[in-house]
Amino acid sequence: QSTLNFGDSPHTRVNILTGEKVLVSPHRSKRPWQGQVEDLPGDNRPEYDPKCYLCPTNQRADGDINPDYKESFVFVNDFSALLKDTSQQEFNEDELFVAETERGICKVIAFTPRHDLTLPEMDQEAIKAVVDLWQKEFVDLSKVEWIKYIQIFENKGAIMGCSNPHPHGQIWSQNHLPVEIQKECVQQQKYFDKYQRTILSDYVKAELSKEERIIDENDSFVSLVPFWAAWPYETMIVSKRAIQNIAGFDDKEKADFAAILKLLTTRYDNLFKTSFPYSAGMHQAPVNDGDHPEWHWHMHFYPPLLRSATVKKFMVGYEMLANPQRDITPEVAAEQLRNCSTVHYKAK
Amino acid sequence: QSTLNFGDSPHTRVNILTGEKVLVSPHRSKRPWQGQVEDLPGDNRPEYDPKCYLCPTNQRADGDINPDYKESFVFVNDFSALLKDTSQQEFNEDELFVAETERGICKVIAFTPRHDLTLPEMDQEAIKAVVDLWQKEFVDLSKVEWIKYIQIFENKGAIMGCSNPHPHGQIWSQNHLPVEIQKECVQQQKYFDKYQRTILSDYVKAELSKEERIIDENDSFVSLVPFWAAWPYETMIVSKRAIQNIAGFDDKEKADFAAILKLLTTRYDNLFKTSFPYSAGMHQAPVNDGDHPEWHWHMHFYPPLLRSATVKKFMVGYEMLANPQRDITPEVAAEQLRNCSTVHYKAK
Ligand SMILES: O=P(O)(O)O[C@H]1O[C@H](CO)[C@@H](O)[C@H](O)[C@H]1O
Ligand SMILES: O=P(O)(O)O[C@H]1O[C@H](CO)[C@@H](O)[C@H](O)[C@H]1O
Repeated sequence: QSTLNFGDSPHTRVNILTGEKVLVSPHRSKRPWQGQVEDLPGDNRPEYDPKCYLCPTNQRADGDINPDYKESFVFVNDFSALLKDTSQQEFNEDELFVAETERGICKVIAFTPRHDLTLPEMDQEAIKAVVDLWQKEFVDLSKVEWIKYIQIFENKGAIMGCSNPHPHGQIWSQNHLPVEIQKECVQQQKYFDKYQRTILSDYVKAELSKEERIIDENDSFVSLVPFWAAWPYETMIVSKRAIQNIAGFDDKEKADFAAILKLLTTRYDNLFKTSFPYSAGMHQAPVNDGDHPEWHWHMHFYPPLLRSATVKKFMVGYEMLANPQRDITPEVAAEQLRNCSTVHYKAK
Repeated sequence: QSTLNFGDSPHTRVNILTGEKVLVSPHRSKRPWQGQVEDLPGDNRPEYDPKCYLCPTNQRADGDINPDYKESFVFVNDFSALLKDTSQQEFNEDELFVAETERGICKVIAFTPRHDLTLPEMDQEAIKAVVDLWQKEFVDLSKVEWIKYIQIFENKGAIMGCSNPHPHGQIWSQNHLPVEIQKECVQQQKYFDKYQRTILSDYVKAELSKEERIIDENDSFVSLVPFWAAWPYETMIVSKRAIQNIAGFDDKEKADFAAILKLLTTRYDNLFKTSFPYSAGMHQAPVNDGDHPEWHWHMHFYPPLLRSATVKKFMVGYEMLANPQRDITPEVAAEQLRNCSTVHYKAK
C-alpha cells in the first residue's frame, strides 16, 4: 500500500476531522495562470488612523467612543449577525422547509491599539496578551448558559473580506452547533469511542515521527500542514495535550501558543513577502454541554494564496459543486513554509 | 409554527439536498461596506481573439490547432486535474492517513466560436445546441464503464477564477462520487425510501404553490431561489419531471431548458448591469451504478456578487470555520430577480 505515489498521481485524501475528502492533482502544479490577478493593498498604514473605527478614542458606527486602550479591546459587533435577544422558534413544513431561530453574541477584538501592525509584527508578549484575552472571553461567554458554541476567528487581508486593516479578530457565539463543528464532533467521537484517545493525539504523534508535514514544534504545540489540507498553504496548530478548549490552557501553554502563532504567521508573511491573508480560527469543544473528552483543541488557517502575493487559488466550479481540489501537495507546501525565515521580512 | 418571522430574526435553514444548514441574518443587510471592491473586467472583446486558446483555428497549450468550428467545440483539458490512465491504489495508515487514487477525464466545451458572447447573449437556438452537446457528452462519457460521476459546470467571470473570457464550460468525470454528490445521494435516498417520490418533485410542487421564491417557469422546468440558498443570489433550475440525468431529456425538454437558462442568465446580467459572474453546474445521478429513482436532475448557480457589480459576498472566517451565512433573505433575492427584465441590457 505504501506504493501510492502521492507526489505524482491524482488522488483523494480523507480529512479525518470532517470525514470529507479533498482531490489532489500534483501533476497539475505547472499549469500557467492567465486569470485574475489580485490588487496588492498598500502597506504604509499610520500607527493611528483618525477614520478607523477600531483605533483608540475614535467613534464607532453605533456612536460609542472607543477607550484609549493600551493592549487590546473587545466590544459587541455593531453589525452582529446574531443577536442575544432572539427567542427560540422552530419551523418544519413537510421536511422540505426546515428552519429555526438562532441566538448569539458577536464580538470584535482589536489585537493592539497600533493600526499599522499585524499579529506577526507584534512582539510575543503582546501576542500573549491577545491569547489571555481570548481565554478570558471564552470563559466569560461559556458562563452564558444558553451558549453552546464559541467561534474565535480572524479574517486577515482585504482579499479575505476583511473590511478594516486594523489588526482584529472576531468571536461569534451561539445556541446551536454550526455545521463544521457538528462534523468534527461526529468524527472525533467515533475515534474516541474506539480507542479512548483523541484522534488528534494519535495524529500529531504520527506526524511528529514522519516530520515531512511539520512546520514548527514547541513543548505544548505543533504547527503542520494537515495530510488532507485543501487550500494550498492550509495549516493547523494543534496542542500536544488533549485539551478540550482554550479555557484549559495553563500559563506555559498560553505562552507557547503565542510563540508558535508568531512563528507560523511570520513564515506566512515571508513566503511571498506580503502580509499573508487568511481566515483562521480555533475549533474546540461545545460549551454548556457536559464533558467532551473526544474533543482536541486546534486552530485552522485557510489562506487563499497559491503562487504569489497576487495569484490566489479559486475554490470554484468543480470545488463548489463536487469536491475541494488542490494542485501542489501538502508535503511541498510544508517544505516551503519550513524553509521560510522566522525573522519577519520587514524587521530591520 | 408559522410565526417564525423569516424577514426579521436571525435563523438557520436546512438545505434538504445536503442536510446542512445556512445561517440567515436578515437584519444585517444594511451593513455598510468598507472592504475590498472588485475590478470590473473590460467588456469590449473582439469576435475573434488571435491569442485566445479557445477561438477557432488557434493553437492550444499542447500544440493542437482548434478546428474552424461553427457551433461548439469539445476537447480534453490541456491541464486536466484528473487523468484517464491512473491505476487504482488505496492507502490507509491507522485510519489517520487515508487516500486513494482518482481516475478521470476532464474536458473543456467552447459554447460558441464567438469570443465576445456569453450564454445570455447567444440566441436560444445556439444555447439549445450547447444543451444537445452536454447531453451527447454525458451519454458518451457514461459509456466508459469505470466512470461513476460526471460533473458538467461553468465558471463565469474573472472573479470566479475563470481564466479565459471566451464562453466555455467544463466536464470533469471520475471513478468515485465527489463529496457534494455523496451528500445529495444520502438525502435524496432517505426521502425516496420514505415517500417513493423524489424530494425535489415535492419541493418544486410546494414552491410553485407558494410562488415567492419562483423566478421563471415553463412546461418542463422551474428556476427559483432555494429556501436554503447560501450565496446572496444563489438559484437552482429544477426539472418538473423526476429525470435522473440529462440523458433523459427529450427534445422538448432540451428546448425548454435552453429557454429557462437564457431567461435566468439574462436576469442575472440585468441585476447589476454587468456580465454576472457565477459557478454553475448540474447535479445528476451517478452513472454505471444501477438505477437511481431517488435522483432528480437540477442545476445550481452560485454567484459571488452581493450588492453591485463590484461588491461581493465573502464566504470567509465564520463561514469557512463554522457555517455558511447570508444577509439578504432568499425571498428578497427572488423578488429582485423576478423584477429584472428578460431583455438583455446590452440588446438594442
Ligand atoms: O481549469 P480552469 O478553468 O483554468 O480553472 C478553474 O476551474 C477549476 C475547476 O473549477 C478550478 O480548479 C480552478 O481553481 C479554477 O481556476
Ligand atoms: O464582520 P466583517 O468582518 O465586516 O465581515 C467579514 O466576516 C464575516 C464573518 O466571517 C463574514 O460574514 C463577512 O462576509 C466578511 O466580510
